[in-house]
Amino acid sequence: MENKKITLNADLLKERQKCTFNTLELTHLLDGGPENTIERREREAFFLDDPELKSSVPTEYLSHKDKYEEAVRVSCLIFRKVLHLQEQGKVGITNFREILGGELGSSIMKDGNPLTLHYVMFIPTLMGQGTYEQQAEWIQKAWKCTMIGTYAQTELGHGTFIRGLETTATYDPETEEFIINSPMLTSYKWWPGGLGHTANYAIVVAQLNTLGKCYGIHPFVVQLRDEETHLPLPGIKIGEIGCKLGMNSTNNGYLGFDNVRIPRKQMLMKNNKVLKDGTYVESPSSKLTYGTMMFVRVVLVQDVANYLKKAVTIAVRYSCVRRQSQLKPDEPEVQIIDYITQQHKLFPIISTYFAFHYCATWLWDMYNNVNSELEAGQLNQLPELHALACCLKAISTSDSASGVETCRLACGGHGYMTSSNFPATYGLVTAMCTYEGENTVLLLQTARFLMKAWQNKIEKLQLTPTVLYLKTAKASNFVYTRSINWIIAVLQQVAAGKIELTWNHMNERIKKGVSVEDAWNHTSIELVACAEAHCRAFVVSRYCSEIMRLKDTVSESLRIVLVQLLHLYGVSTAIKCLGDLLRFSGTTADNIDDLQKWLEELLALIRPNAVSIVDSFDLRDEVLSSTLGAYDGNVYERLFAEAAKSPLNTEPVNKSFQQHLKPFLKSQL
Amino acid sequence: MENKKITLNADLLKERQKCTFNTLELTHLLDGGPENTIERREREAFFLDDPELKSSVPTEYLSHKDKYEEAVRVSCLIFRKVLHLQEQGKVGITNFREILGGELGSSIMKDGNPLTLHYVMFIPTLMGQGTYEQQAEWIQKAWKCTMIGTYAQTELGHGTFIRGLETTATYDPETEEFIINSPMLTSYKWWPGGLGHTANYAIVVAQLNTLGKCYGIHPFVVQLRDEETHLPLPGIKIGEIGCKLGMNSTNNGYLGFDNVRIPRKQMLMKNNKVLKDGTYVESPSSKLTYGTMMFVRVVLVQDVANYLKKAVTIAVRYSCVRRQSQLKPDEPEVQIIDYITQQHKLFPIISTYFAFHYCATWLWDMYNNVNSELEAGQLNQLPELHALACCLKAISTSDSASGVETCRLACGGHGYMTSSNFPATYGLVTAMCTYEGENTVLLLQTARFLMKAWQNKIEKLQLTPTVLYLKTAKASNFVYTRSINWIIAVLQQVAAGKIELTWNHMNERIKKGVSVEDAWNHTSIELVACAEAHCRAFVVSRYCSEIMRLKDTVSESLRIVLVQLLHLYGVSTAIKCLGDLLRFSGTTADNIDDLQKWLEELLALIRPNAVSIVDSFDLRDEVLSSTLGAYDGNVYERLFAEAAKSPLNTEPVNKSFQQHLKPFLKSQL
Repeated sequence: MENKKITLNADLLKERQKCTFNTLELTHLLDGGPENTIERREREAFFLDDPELKSSVPTEYLSHKDKYEEAVRVSCLIFRKVLHLQEQGKVGITNFREILGGELGSSIMKDGNPLTLHYVMFIPTLMGQGTYEQQAEWIQKAWKCTMIGTYAQTELGHGTFIRGLETTATYDPETEEFIINSPMLTSYKWWPGGLGHTANYAIVVAQLNTLGKCYGIHPFVVQLRDEETHLPLPGIKIGEIGCKLGMNSTNNGYLGFDNVRIPRKQMLMKNNKVLKDGTYVESPSSKLTYGTMMFVRVVLVQDVANYLKKAVTIAVRYSCVRRQSQLKPDEPEVQIIDYITQQHKLFPIISTYFAFHYCATWLWDMYNNVNSELEAGQLNQLPELHALACCLKAISTSDSASGVETCRLACGGHGYMTSSNFPATYGLVTAMCTYEGENTVLLLQTARFLMKAWQNKIEKLQLTPTVLYLKTAKASNFVYTRSINWIIAVLQQVAAGKIELTWNHMNERIKKGVSVEDAWNHTSIELVACAEAHCRAFVVSRYCSEIMRLKDTVSESLRIVLVQLLHLYGVSTAIKCLGDLLRFSGTTADNIDDLQKWLEELLALIRPNAVSIVDSFDLRDEVLSSTLGAYDGNVYERLFAEAAKSPLNTEPVNKSFQQHLKPFLKSQL
Repeated sequence: MENKKITLNADLLKERQKCTFNTLELTHLLDGGPENTIERREREAFFLDDPELKSSVPTEYLSHKDKYEEAVRVSCLIFRKVLHLQEQGKVGITNFREILGGELGSSIMKDGNPLTLHYVMFIPTLMGQGTYEQQAEWIQKAWKCTMIGTYAQTELGHGTFIRGLETTATYDPETEEFIINSPMLTSYKWWPGGLGHTANYAIVVAQLNTLGKCYGIHPFVVQLRDEETHLPLPGIKIGEIGCKLGMNSTNNGYLGFDNVRIPRKQMLMKNNKVLKDGTYVESPSSKLTYGTMMFVRVVLVQDVANYLKKAVTIAVRYSCVRRQSQLKPDEPEVQIIDYITQQHKLFPIISTYFAFHYCATWLWDMYNNVNSELEAGQLNQLPELHALACCLKAISTSDSASGVETCRLACGGHGYMTSSNFPATYGLVTAMCTYEGENTVLLLQTARFLMKAWQNKIEKLQLTPTVLYLKTAKASNFVYTRSINWIIAVLQQVAAGKIELTWNHMNERIKKGVSVEDAWNHTSIELVACAEAHCRAFVVSRYCSEIMRLKDTVSESLRIVLVQLLHLYGVSTAIKCLGDLLRFSGTTADNIDDLQKWLEELLALIRPNAVSIVDSFDLRDEVLSSTLGAYDGNVYERLFAEAAKSPLNTEPVNKSFQQHLKPFLKSQL
């Protein structure tokens, strides 16, 4: 954005003067400490202040091909910088996501980075599933970026149901090679980022066949292109899959195999192995690969929360700058944030960011816990982690996708402009509803855990921590008070009530002679609703615990704001499921009336701090990349400046006038 | 789509064999008679069989500028064909929308048509607001397309609140001219389609000032560009606004005025006038312009229903072709349409199309009624039409937008492909939530009507037909039966209950001393909910009446299907607002259990006919423009064929390898 002399928008200035807390304190809190804030800002400056990383024309004006070529230019520069940081020990596997795909990365390359999967999937899989020897061979090359890898799992015919993948890797003991094939059109790999024209290696997930038997899917390292010429190797059929709703610079590709031979040692064998003679040796615990697979799902929750944070920052600032219509005839037009309907659209989204942020932190800790236990051979926490990762991924991505759209629509027509950055953000976020496990499928996996938990409850067996509430919730009658604890209690009652009812419905079907599988399918609308109810109760209670834990470490002025947001999240969640509250808890019509009043009061309490809360997210203008959301609030100037960059605007008359329009107009005379 | 030899997908074939009704009968019914079907098909063939209208490369691969140039080429061809049809008397003002912007138009130009507003806004405004003399001068030119117009209303700073527009037209009696100006940056026109580089004339809406007084907004015909050179005329600052979420070929533009003078007679003066000496003469009824303004909002409901029809056709067909995962270990993978969760996503959307289709027809008839009454000076039905047009526009566009996204997400990753045609469809549909009146603003207008109606009810004054239920709904206690009549009754109870409660809440505020305006604002969350509840009750009851009316004219086999769909729509609507049902009607937990069972039974009943119902929509493959939704179901072949069209796939190695990637990889060795 070119702003030679920065003048702050007067309305935004006034908003900032109303702030009742220290924004820097909140920034530090969200970063996890002042040192992290400094580090993050340094990292951002290192990338965002580099003029070489900026494209001369906004990429949205480019053709699909030019977009890709520009993306390769920029992503190579980013990788050079990453390597530089690596050498200084300033970057590790957790930062990669942020720089390449997350908050920072998506601001440098709004439409995706064709090299991302190298760090985000290729290297982690080598590390997680390769033997020490294999790691020794590949990791050095991969870290140094003398090879570029991607991760090829999804096929044209199979996504979330990975057991159904069709690509085959058949072992030939004579040559000690695997022969990789795509038996059908649907067996082509389809979707992997960077696969089209960028990566020269891939981890390929294929059905392993040896000595006439299929052992299910396993990972193989396959070279795709010649290192010197980049030409596809023999038997490799490769290309890109075409334009998409978003992420058009990620170079998603397809890949088919026609008798491609690779050495036996290119199967990643940390867990299961194929010996020289073709003998398959199963790992003592097949679940060991499971922890690694969950990694992406776990970090996704934080990623998606960050996108939501971006969107709501843009919408809140714009809503203070934008004035529209009058409330009273003699008064000036109103800042649209003063419409209660606008507050009702945006403020709950601010609190949703906090809720997901704290759930993501918790999930990340639990993941690390479970992973260390796995290394020690303990598997007992795994089902609970799986159940929570599934529903949190599903709920956080779908709520965030609709949250981003709510923010966009709340900005009216200007939200529809590419320069608002809502369209690209939505493109990134809505994709997450599908990849790494389609949301409905994931919710049904959580539901399976919940049905088992209810069975355990009936059989008086032990319940794991996150479903302990099933024991007590239903029996109690919680007297209404305006409190987050009441909300948590009734949300748990709702979840328990739904789980019980669904369990009953399913078992009625089974008793009538319906097979277990069909009964499951026929009850699945309710099963999905169980998983959602369980997840929502979990999120509110998790969010609440984190805020309570902070109580003594933050200033009183900040604590007040944090608690208001928590309450707003709780009340909004409760009001969204009033029907469930009335059905499954003792909630009365009067309680609902009071919840509505509480909601309205909370909106009014948050109103003066709204801009300061989003300011505390400390998102640089380049990270927001939005004409509507910049710190200075010069919305209209920016919209104009961006329009001026359209190549169509470089000439007063487009050639199509002489070519097509004039001949047409004149032909009618 | 190139399909040399068409082989029907076996699963789709089987689906079609299960059909229990005559699909052609349903096609005729939806078209409004067999003759309309024939006419529509002829019109479609006339456009879609013309090879010149097809772009050689899918436009999504082009640069923004190339997209525009291709759009001008194609739109001129379309206009030539439209003129040809006009000469034959085969096209009128109602078809224009369909050909240029609606179902047919959006399939020829998926990303919008820069000439659309000429027929859709420019000509209708000339006709509606021009005097006979003005019509004589302009209409001939406009019909013949020797001038191309657009409609410039929205500004950078003002959208839905048109009273706040800032462009001024100041009358100068000495020269008998208006002087048009954009006093501020925010006064620039912003958004009009075709304004950037295409149109040479515009109807400009500006604040009329004469003899020192401002008379509010009025329409003026302004020439923008020289007819020979297409250069902007002096004082005209014009260009395009840049990329957007969708509709990137519509050439939305900006427009600023610097003392642009136009003759007095270029103010459209059918209603209000400015005389030579500058005297302002007001029309006897200022509401006369109102009917015309509502036109677009009214037709929008049918437009958006048509897009939804397209989306659900694609999703239903794909769901029969796609097989994924197993329900039982020994059985083949399941057609995903056999998952009840998938049926629950898609089948209610089929019924939503029917509901909006019938509401649109009704609204169109009422609009025509009211318009003829207006011509006769009768205004009494206008508020009711306005209230219904507002909420139907809001609910139909927002339900359709989320419906299109549900369809897309139900198709998993492939739905994210541009070639699925979901992204462009969503781009068109979600825009409708904002233009022609932002949805929340519109719902609040309906709410204003409802508050007044409740006041009338209290004061025992007469109630208009669509709010008659306010009198009786609350008092009654409807015994549950599985029937659409019960659903309508309780939905009306819900609406009446909410309206009463909201009226009370607002008046409590006023009694406490809050100003009427602030009380309105503070109650607005509930006001929006009132409008929505009223609208939903109306839609179900309208839909029901239409199906009941058809009863004797359609075959029994079709009637059964139509009633199933009606019931599904009713039950889905009821289940979505369970909380309201429990709060405002006598609905019990047992009733809810039964509604859930009814829902599940209806899904099962509709299942065998699902494909045949969408087949009856009779959408040509070119209209669907989707790799996933074509009639033959060759989904995977089409995905591949479309990917092959990517310019990136014409060469095995992209030049960025030599330019950027190789130097980077090698530098690390």
